[in-house]
Amino acid sequence: MKEFDTIAAIATSPGESGISIIRISGENSLKIVDSIFKAKNNKKLLNIRPYSMRYGFIFEKDTGELLDEVLVSFMKAPKSYTAEDTVEVNCHGGIITTNKILDEIIKCGARLAEPGEFTKRAFLNGRVDLSEAEAVIDIIRSKTEVSMKAALKQSTGSISKEINPLREKLLNIIAHIEATVDYPEEDLEELTADEVSQELKDILKRIDIMLKNADQGKIIRDGLNTVIVGKPNVGKSSLLNSLINENRAIVTEIPGTTRDVIEEYINIDGIPIKIVDTAGIRETEDVVEKIGVEKSKEKIGEADLVILMLDISGTFNKEDREIVNFIKDKKYIILLNKSDLNDKINLEEVQKLNSRFVIKTSLKTGEGIDKIKNCIKELFFAGELKPNKFVITNSRHKEALIRTRENCIEALDTLKNTQAIDLVSIDIRNAWMSLGEITGDTLEENIIDKIFSKFCLGK
Amino acid sequence: MKEFDTIAAIATSPGESGISIIRISGENSLKIVDSIFKAKNNKKLLNIRPYSMRYGFIFEKDTGELLDEVLVSFMKAPKSYTAEDTVEVNCHGGIITTNKILDEIIKCGARLAEPGEFTKRAFLNGRVDLSEAEAVIDIIRSKTEVSMKAALKQSTGSISKEINPLREKLLNIIAHIEATVDYPEEDLEELTADEVSQELKDILKRIDIMLKNADQGKIIRDGLNTVIVGKPNVGKSSLLNSLINENRAIVTEIPGTTRDVIEEYINIDGIPIKIVDTAGIRETEDVVEKIGVEKSKEKIGEADLVILMLDISGTFNKEDREIVNFIKDKKYIILLNKSDLNDKINLEEVQKLNSRFVIKTSLKTGEGIDKIKNCIKELFFAGELKPNKFVITNSRHKEALIRTRENCIEALDTLKNTQAIDLVSIDIRNAWMSLGEITGDTLEENIIDKIFSKFCLGK
Repeated sequence: MKEFDTIAAIATSPGESGISIIRISGENSLKIVDSIFKAKNNKKLLNIRPYSMRYGFIFEKDTGELLDEVLVSFMKAPKSYTAEDTVEVNCHGGIITTNKILDEIIKCGARLAEPGEFTKRAFLNGRVDLSEAEAVIDIIRSKTEVSMKAALKQSTGSISKEINPLREKLLNIIAHIEATVDYPEEDLEELTADEVSQELKDILKRIDIMLKNADQGKIIRDGLNTVIVGKPNVGKSSLLNSLINENRAIVTEIPGTTRDVIEEYINIDGIPIKIVDTAGIRETEDVVEKIGVEKSKEKIGEADLVILMLDISGTFNKEDREIVNFIKDKKYIILLNKSDLNDKINLEEVQKLNSRFVIKTSLKTGEGIDKIKNCIKELFFAGELKPNKFVITNSRHKEALIRTRENCIEALDTLKNTQAIDLVSIDIRNAWMSLGEITGDTLEENIIDKIFSKFCLGK
Repeated sequence: MKEFDTIAAIATSPGESGISIIRISGENSLKIVDSIFKAKNNKKLLNIRPYSMRYGFIFEKDTGELLDEVLVSFMKAPKSYTAEDTVEVNCHGGIITTNKILDEIIKCGARLAEPGEFTKRAFLNGRVDLSEAEAVIDIIRSKTEVSMKAALKQSTGSISKEINPLREKLLNIIAHIEATVDYPEEDLEELTADEVSQELKDILKRIDIMLKNADQGKIIRDGLNTVIVGKPNVGKSSLLNSLINENRAIVTEIPGTTRDVIEEYINIDGIPIKIVDTAGIRETEDVVEKIGVEKSKEKIGEADLVILMLDISGTFNKEDREIVNFIKDKKYIILLNKSDLNDKINLEEVQKLNSRFVIKTSLKTGEGIDKIKNCIKELFFAGELKPNKFVITNSRHKEALIRTRENCIEALDTLKNTQAIDLVSIDIRNAWMSLGEITGDTLEENIIDKIFSKFCLGK
């Protein structure tokens, strides 16, 4: 295990609550807390048994003044989250108390942890691989049960279990090629180009299976980025409200870690649907007038799904056509809204549009709203959502898999054309490297730093 | 100990964080968690040693699906927060995970705890008295270190230590009077009216000392309610920003439990200064025009302190006089702002106003801003803030003390006029009852319920 300094941070969410936790990790964690802690039973903290707790009080170092009544728990290395000696101080959940205790712990020699630094240590100390570490923040940020369970699977090594055998196969091929090339005099069993090709094809098959569901995985993890468009007064805000009201109970406002942006998430059968910056969308209420506005272009550009609302009781007119022109390259669903009124729209023209789904809806009567759900499942999950299936959810992993795939195809092409196995050694090594980026075995330090910096404080 | 059902709640603040805690208290808490927990080391949870932790996994009861990696800790009755068997489940700090685990625990037989119910049990089970229980929420809600430490003192029984001996004295008097009255034939040592009077006077003295600092105590606990007034463009918003910017680092936005209202607190030498609803105040930017507005009247009515801003470079005019008329019954400080410009204001007229403090300030140069702090200390703490002194901070306690005081004075008057100790028995009993309300010994159940309902969930 590497040697690190001792770090500390508040591990619970800030706010008024029953309990807050200050987490300290590193060689000196017990010594540091011991210097400001007095147990109710007067026992020294340094003798605390691993995986046990002690009730007592934290005192200000300089003044000796009482700071809080606490429970201190101890996890001994390597059996802790970070694989280092870890102490947790459970105190009263006030902002002042919690920060004050953290301040004292810093004063006594701990360093304030950076975001994600505890999990980074778990990774650097070899307790988890990078895909498992990344899953931790996905669990925390998950917006629905389906996304939470997908992250949980990943946290228990589901990706490594797929990736590691493939890396081993690649490494075996490399070793074999190199031995054959370096020691031709030794009577090594020859590896033929056909054999290598077959191995690579097997690996490609596994990768293709993983990549097949990666887009679904991304939606499960990050949510389906959805934008509602339509001309003024067609019912966009009502749809938004109706979708939110029905589903909001499950996932309410989840402020980002910076608390700057509040995103609206709704939950449709476990799929997190992210309604992006509704304020922005509402600004473009009069779509025709503002259709040139860069902001709405951007929003629609980023969307996974557009919901186009048309007024069934009006005509399909120039305004609508302009909107359609604007979204024609996106996946979109058409809602013929105001179905409680008389049909007037030219249905033929609507049916010619590039959308697989046209739904009659009435936000007044509620007609058709539940069908939207089925369309989404049909469009993005081929009708079936299998949350229990193994799935790649992280774009970083997907990109690494795509690169691995390219390396393998390159190697296969070379083998096909030359039959010379020594020429593909570099491609296969690259494939092995690309795969290793997923588990963190072959990733550069600054990229690793960047990944953990996106974590929340205290994790 | 009374028998209660088993309750559960999330004890940490909701949000994305490293750790969340679900707290379960009651006879069945261990059994309930055991039914969905599997330890990594395969040991049964039911055999867990008190004050120790076990690492393992929570599973969904119905499906057997993995829900999270957790640490379970156990505090055995009566050595726990509630004085009941208490289990805490530390899980990944996501909103979905945490709620899902709580749901499972509820499904397995726990009841969702009401706000404050854990602390209420600590009280009902006799582990803490009411003043100590109330201090817990004061610690959590404290806005500065001074308020936190005052609450902390109270949580460790500082009030009971004052109150209980007084109650004992009163009870002794009652017993003595009643014995003398009920068994005149027994040769009991007679208690004279003078002796009773002397005892009551001693008690009154203690109560007066406690009441003397109660107003300061209230400010320490709840903050100094401050409103800034002045005619348009005199610099109100700049003052607010300048006060907030300088001090905000210590206490940032503290959202209320409902997260609806965000109050601005600044910290001046440990005194929490609450700048009330600045949006509301800003609405009354043009004070003269809107001086009749009910809202601003209300705000000023509730204020502990008004800061009146005048423009030193202008004349003291009708607008200013209207504002002064409006605040004349409040404690106020006058700022002569824009001191970087030429004096033009009629200082004599300003000095005639009912304010002990007139400060020249310039928000441009920063002149005088730090003097505001001293004025506040002078006005509310007679120049000295002694955070370590015992102080009554809670209005409920103050009111009970006032009633006790009245009961004692009533008794003293009767004794003075009649010398008949049997006539004061009822007053002394009332004094004893009033004091007991502070520690909760003589408080009605519905009032107790109301006190705890103001706690946060999970405490």
